[in-house]
Amino acid sequence: EEIGAVARSIVEKAIEKHAADGLGRVDYALASGGAMVVAHSEPLFPTAGIWLKLKKVNVVAQKMLQPSFGEPGHCFPLKGSNGFVDIKLRTDIIPDAVTLEHVAKSVAYDRSSAPKDCQIFGWFQGRDADQSNQAEKKFLLTEFAYDLDRSNAQTFSVESSNSGIVNMIRLEFSSNHGGPHTCIYRLRVHGHEPDLVAVPSLQP
Amino acid sequence: EEIGAVARSIVEKAIEKHAADGLGRVDYALASGGAMVVAHSEPLFPTAGIWLKLKKVNVVAQKMLQPSFGEPGHCFPLKGSNGFVDIKLRTDIIPDAVTLEHVAKSVAYDRSSAPKDCQIFGWFQGRDADQSNQAEKKFLLTEFAYDLDRSNAQTFSVESSNSGIVNMIRLEFSSNHGGPHTCIYRLRVHGHEPDLVAVPSLQP
Amino acid sequence: EEIGAVARSIVEKAIEKHAADGLGRVDYALASGGAMVVAHSEPLFPTAGIWLKLKKVNVVAQKMLQPSFGEPGHCFPLKGSNGFVDIKLRTDIIPDAVTLEHVAKSVAYDRSSAPKDCQIFGWFQGRDADQSNQAEKKFLLTEFAYDLDRSNAQTFSVESSNSGIVNMIRLEFSSNHGGPHTCIYRLRVHGHEPDLVAVPSLQP
Ligand SMILES: [K+]
Ligand SMILES: [K+]
Ligand SMILES: [K+]
Repeated sequence: EEIGAVARSIVEKAIEKHAADGLGRVDYALASGGAMVVAHSEPLFPTAGIWLKLKKVNVVAQKMLQPSFGEPGHCFPLKGSNGFVDIKLRTDIIPDAVTLEHVAKSVAYDRSSAPKDCQIFGWFQGRDADQSNQAEKKFLLTEFAYDLDRSNAQTFSVESSNSGIVNMIRLEFSSNHGGPHTCIYRLRVHGHEPDLVAVPSLQP
Repeated sequence: EEIGAVARSIVEKAIEKHAADGLGRVDYALASGGAMVVAHSEPLFPTAGIWLKLKKVNVVAQKMLQPSFGEPGHCFPLKGSNGFVDIKLRTDIIPDAVTLEHVAKSVAYDRSSAPKDCQIFGWFQGRDADQSNQAEKKFLLTEFAYDLDRSNAQTFSVESSNSGIVNMIRLEFSSNHGGPHTCIYRLRVHGHEPDLVAVPSLQP
Repeated sequence: EEIGAVARSIVEKAIEKHAADGLGRVDYALASGGAMVVAHSEPLFPTAGIWLKLKKVNVVAQKMLQPSFGEPGHCFPLKGSNGFVDIKLRTDIIPDAVTLEHVAKSVAYDRSSAPKDCQIFGWFQGRDADQSNQAEKKFLLTEFAYDLDRSNAQTFSVESSNSGIVNMIRLEFSSNHGGPHTCIYRLRVHGHEPDLVAVPSLQP
């Protein structure tokens, strides 16, 4: 019966974590939390879109800020093997990790569309920011390769020296796993909200 | 290998329960089962609504009769720290418990919007009921405080002496956990359908 | 601590499988993968529908090609205790099993609407297929009875001698568990895509 008690406690914790969005970590890039995709490279299906300021954003882009529930197809497909997506976070945070997720191997039709070599950039965008100057302010938070042999949700730490307050994130991928297009199932951004005392910002 | 067998059996039962809406209990307030919110106190976002008879019902109100899948934001937000929601159940039942759920601590941005002191009322509404007389027929089924330190789905029994046939439920909250508004993630109502033999009703 | 390690490993595998659509098997009849219901017997709610070629397809029919997430009501309800549904698969496959799912016992209001005696047919439909000739080409892949006492997702193997390339599946049910109508929560079709070398097709 002691075995049962140990096992039950392990199971309860594991299911609690699974039920808490799989990871049990706060996601500041979640669509239902107020985050949104605001720009991206050329989408696979270019027809349907909405205009955000001067950029056209594909209607399925927001899928990459939503849970996938183990279902193939719940992703944002982009043309080619390299590209980018810009995300406006729910609020200002000091990022400490990101999680990139693709569909699980066991239910996937094909995983050649998974992104491979990735870079994550962060920056702070003021309300009246001149959009044309944004490119100069982006800081590299982490770079990694998505590995098809590991668990399908892969978390990568942000090096602490790079941390500062950000409200924008760019995912840039320079290769994928061999397919003609690239599907982003989900990107999550973890971190914490700054205290009201002064915290260094990434802005100059 | 005996350990493995014991553990496997515990795991299977736990996942089966998790897969069965988390609790493995029938919910007569589930939107996909036919229940609906029919009235409520002032919503946080008052613009979008549908008219049910003479009451305007907020379009996001029905979110509190749907699963939340561990996602922050899937709730019905109401103004202030006290208020109420009236729910028409799927069918006539004898209630034996209710479950109030808020978003899990590990994925929440902020839990100050969770309701705290709550009362649950039940009553039976006939087809031709005079709406203005409804208030007199409500019976207190249970009262409780939602506790942020416990599991996020908290079940409270209905005292058996209060049981009778009901098809309407009111959730009334008189305080929350400190926020300027109150979010209801989900309310479930458990019980059983009356046999066709006579059962005492809450109606006079 | 050894017990803990064994239990943890069992739990991780079980949750991984649960998170992978419950079964950890590829489903070629999944709506988000591109499959769709293209014909069916008389639906319970006949009003809303879309026209596919010459057949009217009920708008809720596609629910049977989507996950149910432990929720009653997420099904396609058909009139009576016998009927059929035709599904166009995502792509050409050699089928090796099907899974029929009904709502879990613990959360169900009533399971008399579950299908009972079922037959699964498969065939290959060419692009220019003469629809009126289709009936002659259907092959029986498997037949079974859905059992209310077993787990709610029940998988049945296709006998290997029946296997060939198919892109269409018919679920035909000749009885249900006693209700006046029949609800199909989900049908999944498992198998593998043919290699590019020659594989025998079900077409003559
Ligand atoms: K997704
Ligand atoms: K909800
Ligand atoms: K379904």
